[in-house]
Amino acid sequence: MLINGQPGDSIAASDRGLAYGDGLYRTLQARHGQPLLWHWQWQRLAADCASLRLPCPDEALLLDEIARVAGELPRAVVKIVLTRGSGQRGYAMPADVTPTRIVSATAWAGYPAERAEQGVVVRWCATRLAIQPLLAGIKHLNRLENVFARSEWQDAAIAEGLMLDMDGTVVEGTMSNLFIVRRGELLTPPLDRCGVSGAMRACVLQLAANLGIAVREARLLSDEVLAADEAFICNSLAGIWPLRQLEQRQWQAWPLTRRLQQALAD
Amino acid sequence: MLINGQPGDSIAASDRGLAYGDGLYRTLQARHGQPLLWHWQWQRLAADCASLRLPCPDEALLLDEIARVAGELPRAVVKIVLTRGSGQRGYAMPADVTPTRIVSATAWAGYPAERAEQGVVVRWCATRLAIQPLLAGIKHLNRLENVFARSEWQDAAIAEGLMLDMDGTVVEGTMSNLFIVRRGELLTPPLDRCGVSGAMRACVLQLAANLGIAVREARLLSDEVLAADEAFICNSLAGIWPLRQLEQRQWQAWPLTRRLQQALAD
Repeated sequence: MLINGQPGDSIAASDRGLAYGDGLYRTLQARHGQPLLWHWQWQRLAADCASLRLPCPDEALLLDEIARVAGELPRAVVKIVLTRGSGQRGYAMPADVTPTRIVSATAWAGYPAERAEQGVVVRWCATRLAIQPLLAGIKHLNRLENVFARSEWQDAAIAEGLMLDMDGTVVEGTMSNLFIVRRGELLTPPLDRCGVSGAMRACVLQLAANLGIAVREARLLSDEVLAADEAFICNSLAGIWPLRQLEQRQWQAWPLTRRLQQALAD
Repeated sequence: MLINGQPGDSIAASDRGLAYGDGLYRTLQARHGQPLLWHWQWQRLAADCASLRLPCPDEALLLDEIARVAGELPRAVVKIVLTRGSGQRGYAMPADVTPTRIVSATAWAGYPAERAEQGVVVRWCATRLAIQPLLAGIKHLNRLENVFARSEWQDAAIAEGLMLDMDGTVVEGTMSNLFIVRRGELLTPPLDRCGVSGAMRACVLQLAANLGIAVREARLLSDEVLAADEAFICNSLAGIWPLRQLEQRQWQAWPLTRRLQQALAD
């Protein structure tokens, strides 16, 4: 683990990342220190820095630090955390910000391949996402809703929980973005009111466009997800997992999802 | 500063307080190590622990640690932070929680007395509070809305910003709770959908009851605040600050607010 480029494993207890969740993060895969989907990870990270008015670190510096923490691991989960650093007491953003930058890696064997191959079982979460356009899409450190949602089930056979917003439209999974297929068209909820705009989501949108698949953002009700021809969740670690079961609804074939999985593998 | 009872000034970078804002805090005044409003601080802290399903520390232990960090300071700001500690990657609450407990103190001279005596100038914030009943009232570590709201103004003559929720009802200040007086009755917004339930708010409700002042929670529109006979904000550090000006509206006398200030001083 590197803290501002120096080996370490702790941060100041006065850090605003702890005090207020005043910062952001990304979680990504690396192979021998090379981050996957970096184009989209970097794009999202830079956009989130701008949204939070955080100074964005240098791209080459981040890539170097990822290589340093993950270079000796064939396969790793890398986490990047950026905070507004330590400041005086009080919510106001300090005029002089010295951000805190944490880059860490842990060895990781990957998820069981059967999840991508045979699909996953998911559930609906009772925990709703609050509507807050100011913070929507940002992978910030205010994640209590996800903590509560993920704590609704213990059954290891359930891979993910899908979350609705306060208005009852479907947004995402607790740790993934959601897509459905309806009459050959790929649909995913817009993230303009809540939710996290994942790097894999951005990548899937690009892959679909490259493959000539019609794709757009659309607010979806839970019934529309249940009625979908196909559905899948995705994130940077999981890749693309087709939905095999959601409550009583089951899916057995995912022709369009398979094309996207193949395009991603290439 | 004490971290889990030991002198220190840093926490593990893997702490869930940093990763997800998975924890809570209280800020309070202490005189020679004796916390003020402790009855209400402790009540709120214990309630917030229950809401977040965090193990609540022992009350005597906390009081001892406050005395240790603030005992040599005539007047101090004490901050207590409790987090769900370090855990494995992922949002799920760990089965075995070892909470992180941070108790710190800094010397503090108090706010200028004129704020309580002559009243303060406040403004409306553009930043809205999202509606999330699950987290409403809790002084948790997900405070980006407050950070954004407090960053809307730099003018030191403005003491506080008042925040509305997404539905347009008035909730609180960025760092304070709000009361208004209307025809002899004391009103404060309910905190069942968003906002922070402050210890001073609880104390004021009790003081008003003791004084025989009619008091109740009521959803308030901004026009109702502007039309109030009196208005004040309060928190554990400020005490009670009458509103002297909000946008074009000015107040010059605060008879009921003065009674509450006097009761608090006693």
